[in-house]
Amino acid sequence: MMCAVVYKTPQLNERVERFLSEIGVVVKFFSKPSKELEDFDFIVTIGGDGTILSVLQEIRECPPIFGINTGKVGILTHSKPEDFEVTLKEAIEKFEVEEFTRIKCECDKGEFLALNEVAFLSKDRAKLMRVTVKVDGEEIDSLRCDGIIASTQIGSTAYAFSLGGPVIDPYLESILIVPIAPFRFGWKPIVIRSDRVVEFESENAIAVIDGKKFLETDKVVIGKSNFPAVFFMKKKRFINMFNTIRRIE
Amino acid sequence: MMCAVVYKTPQLNERVERFLSEIGVVVKFFSKPSKELEDFDFIVTIGGDGTILSVLQEIRECPPIFGINTGKVGILTHSKPEDFEVTLKEAIEKFEVEEFTRIKCECDKGEFLALNEVAFLSKDRAKLMRVTVKVDGEEIDSLRCDGIIASTQIGSTAYAFSLGGPVIDPYLESILIVPIAPFRFGWKPIVIRSDRVVEFESENAIAVIDGKKFLETDKVVIGKSNFPAVFFMKKKRFINMFNTIRRIE
Amino acid sequence: MMCAVVYKTPQLNERVERFLSEIGVVVKFFSKPSKELEDFDFIVTIGGDGTILSVLQEIRECPPIFGINTGKVGILTHSKPEDFEVTLKEAIEKFEVEEFTRIKCECDKGEFLALNEVAFLSKDRAKLMRVTVKVDGEEIDSLRCDGIIASTQIGSTAYAFSLGGPVIDPYLESILIVPIAPFRFGWKPIVIRSDRVVEFESENAIAVIDGKKFLETDKVVIGKSNFPAVFFMKKKRFINMFNTIRRIE
Amino acid sequence: MMCAVVYKTPQLNERVERFLSEIGVVVKFFSKPSKELEDFDFIVTIGGDGTILSVLQEIRECPPIFGINTGKVGILTHSKPEDFEVTLKEAIEKFEVEEFTRIKCECDKGEFLALNEVAFLSKDRAKLMRVTVKVDGEEIDSLRCDGIIASTQIGSTAYAFSLGGPVIDPYLESILIVPIAPFRFGWKPIVIRSDRVVEFESENAIAVIDGKKFLETDKVVIGKSNFPAVFFMKKKRFINMFNTIRRIE
Repeated sequence: MMCAVVYKTPQLNERVERFLSEIGVVVKFFSKPSKELEDFDFIVTIGGDGTILSVLQEIRECPPIFGINTGKVGILTHSKPEDFEVTLKEAIEKFEVEEFTRIKCECDKGEFLALNEVAFLSKDRAKLMRVTVKVDGEEIDSLRCDGIIASTQIGSTAYAFSLGGPVIDPYLESILIVPIAPFRFGWKPIVIRSDRVVEFESENAIAVIDGKKFLETDKVVIGKSNFPAVFFMKKKRFINMFNTIRRIE
Repeated sequence: MMCAVVYKTPQLNERVERFLSEIGVVVKFFSKPSKELEDFDFIVTIGGDGTILSVLQEIRECPPIFGINTGKVGILTHSKPEDFEVTLKEAIEKFEVEEFTRIKCECDKGEFLALNEVAFLSKDRAKLMRVTVKVDGEEIDSLRCDGIIASTQIGSTAYAFSLGGPVIDPYLESILIVPIAPFRFGWKPIVIRSDRVVEFESENAIAVIDGKKFLETDKVVIGKSNFPAVFFMKKKRFINMFNTIRRIE
Repeated sequence: MMCAVVYKTPQLNERVERFLSEIGVVVKFFSKPSKELEDFDFIVTIGGDGTILSVLQEIRECPPIFGINTGKVGILTHSKPEDFEVTLKEAIEKFEVEEFTRIKCECDKGEFLALNEVAFLSKDRAKLMRVTVKVDGEEIDSLRCDGIIASTQIGSTAYAFSLGGPVIDPYLESILIVPIAPFRFGWKPIVIRSDRVVEFESENAIAVIDGKKFLETDKVVIGKSNFPAVFFMKKKRFINMFNTIRRIE
Repeated sequence: MMCAVVYKTPQLNERVERFLSEIGVVVKFFSKPSKELEDFDFIVTIGGDGTILSVLQEIRECPPIFGINTGKVGILTHSKPEDFEVTLKEAIEKFEVEEFTRIKCECDKGEFLALNEVAFLSKDRAKLMRVTVKVDGEEIDSLRCDGIIASTQIGSTAYAFSLGGPVIDPYLESILIVPIAPFRFGWKPIVIRSDRVVEFESENAIAVIDGKKFLETDKVVIGKSNFPAVFFMKKKRFINMFNTIRRIE
């Protein structure tokens, strides 16, 4: 089996290589993720959730990912650096994987995939924008704000979390819409079916894909992608998520 | 066809009877809903959402319901009193219906069904309770509060709405958990799959089913029921919901 | 000097009596607070914030209070049971005190004083009320809700805290208005000057004074009282408040 | 008397000049505010709240300001374009003014004044910063967020409003601290006395003064300024504020 190891910092590389070699896996290291990752049997990331999101930006077809957490929060990762060997060994032996829907963001700059969220922001800092929000082609709102996001259920513990959105079951397929600093008396987070299509439109906007890609565009169309993210199965993902977000400091 | 008409106030009764007779429907009037409603081909309610919820409290098997709104908000109803004839005629002719999952609440007082929500409250007013919250048997939280609710997606525009919950797509099967006046620095509404089982446990508690039934009990187990509520199809239910909640005064 | 000791549970009584006698203070114990407390030089409470609030319900003129915390949160108290002697000795020697404005609630049942808040609730559980809110005689809002509160800045860490109100500086004289479960798209907590007069009016209401007194009444008029609560000075009250509310579980 | 007229767009200029000349006021027009405005007897602005904020950026000593609202919200302005003559005439005749505290922001780039708020933001878009918050020299919090603001009570209807802050009485001197997109389970807006000193510190930050001035700096110290903003008295400012914010769309 061929494994791509994507690392943010190289401290663990040697230990990871040694471990994988011992169980007969061929390893190639990447300090920067690329399209080439699609061709491996699986991917190990050394870093935080951000490293996994960077990997996902580069690939459509997604080999199963196993994350070793050297970052702060690590909701997407599978193990701590201290004892990754045990968890990773079991993961490779069982090879049980799970898919999480990504959303695709179509705009005049192309089509992009997000595991967490598409943020649609005012291009100029500290300047209100008026965003029109459509769902399945019907306008459901128009509001002045700093921006607005469409998030997956997985992203409900990422940017949406900071914006006052609810925590969503990682296994409840859905799209969460939350405004950023809405300048209006009333607003609510909205949770919709993942097979609906969301549109945001505004002058002078940028779209930010999973906090990684920045695009100048006045309109984005967001819907379910056919290229999910694939992860090695994580035990008790649901209950772990709650424990993790409560510990964030 | 046999139609049960359940009315809160009798002003429209004559007009409804005349209309239904003309199109060949046999009508029986109920000022108070009962188990007998299960035996009709369909039900017309004259009242608000509360009247529909009262009907649902009495029945397990649910004939399709058509609501004429004489109440304030009317998210569940189908038409205004002024022109119910047009909408109702079309509804009966097409007879297209849609089901919405009800949740069942099991406790030492029996099993109860809710379309909107099960509220689990401190028995004594103005007194904090400590509630343990479990999902699928695992404790996810324990907090001091005035109470906590488990709501369906339909109920997201009812009590959950007042408690700071998100607005949920009427067609996204889910259970929404929101505390009432949580005495703690941090908390979040939680949205989970509707096939999970939620437990609330506390001393000195009461459960309130859809705001209609009050039960003294220290523990409730809440899950998806096999007896959905059935309604005549409502056009643009999703978009209408948004327009309605924004107009609430 | 004469000291009244009000206790919730008697475990510490002997130790408190011994300590106070040694420094020449005459002690009288109360298991239940009464008007008689006004006549003492100072008051020691053994219990939680609730015990202090009970004391304050009985008195208008307020001798300085020193709280030994045997309860859960203890924002108003001065020391833990373990080492109350040190703090209490210093407090009596210096006899530095500070006053916190109480609000008075006038209604057809009389006039009542609150250190934390006046809650104006729907008499029937799980039933919306429509409340009219006036400030200085002008209607500023009318909304359907489970209730509404007017809180002092001190009360901002009590019931108002659970309702989504801001944390207010204990030394910023102010009245905080927060609805309970407002059934409306938009609402905001409101913070006003303490010399303004707030009125709540609704059918079928009850007023709850500091969680202790329950009054059936349809209208309450709330304003600054001339009878503040008096406490022994608490060092770093402001910073301690933050640390305390963050630790609440 | 000498009046400076600062306009955003020139449509009303002729009418304003004619009106002021008729009552014997000498007028000078400014398309761009400058320090020179300090030398006039009073200032008329034609624009929205933003125009008034621009004026205030240029001056320390503040002549009374009268705002003609040609913008969207206009919480700070005094009249609509249609009938400014009546209100302005009365204002000049009575010459009753009121002061509102500005906060000063000290940093390595100098000292700046804000009527609404100082926003302390992550320099890089879509990147969390860790901010340390001190009040009167004591750390009260440290959190990861997109930014944080310190607002006056007047600013509680500006950026703070969008961030979930409470609405504060325009006549309650205070400073409101609200984080922007805090990535943490729990947080609360904080309202403190205006004579306290607030510090924000973080790497890679910018400070934005009333949405007008942008400063790269890692630390800001915010406190009450001795140079208040001065406005012509506005009748029913308190109740008008509520009506205005409820109408925002």
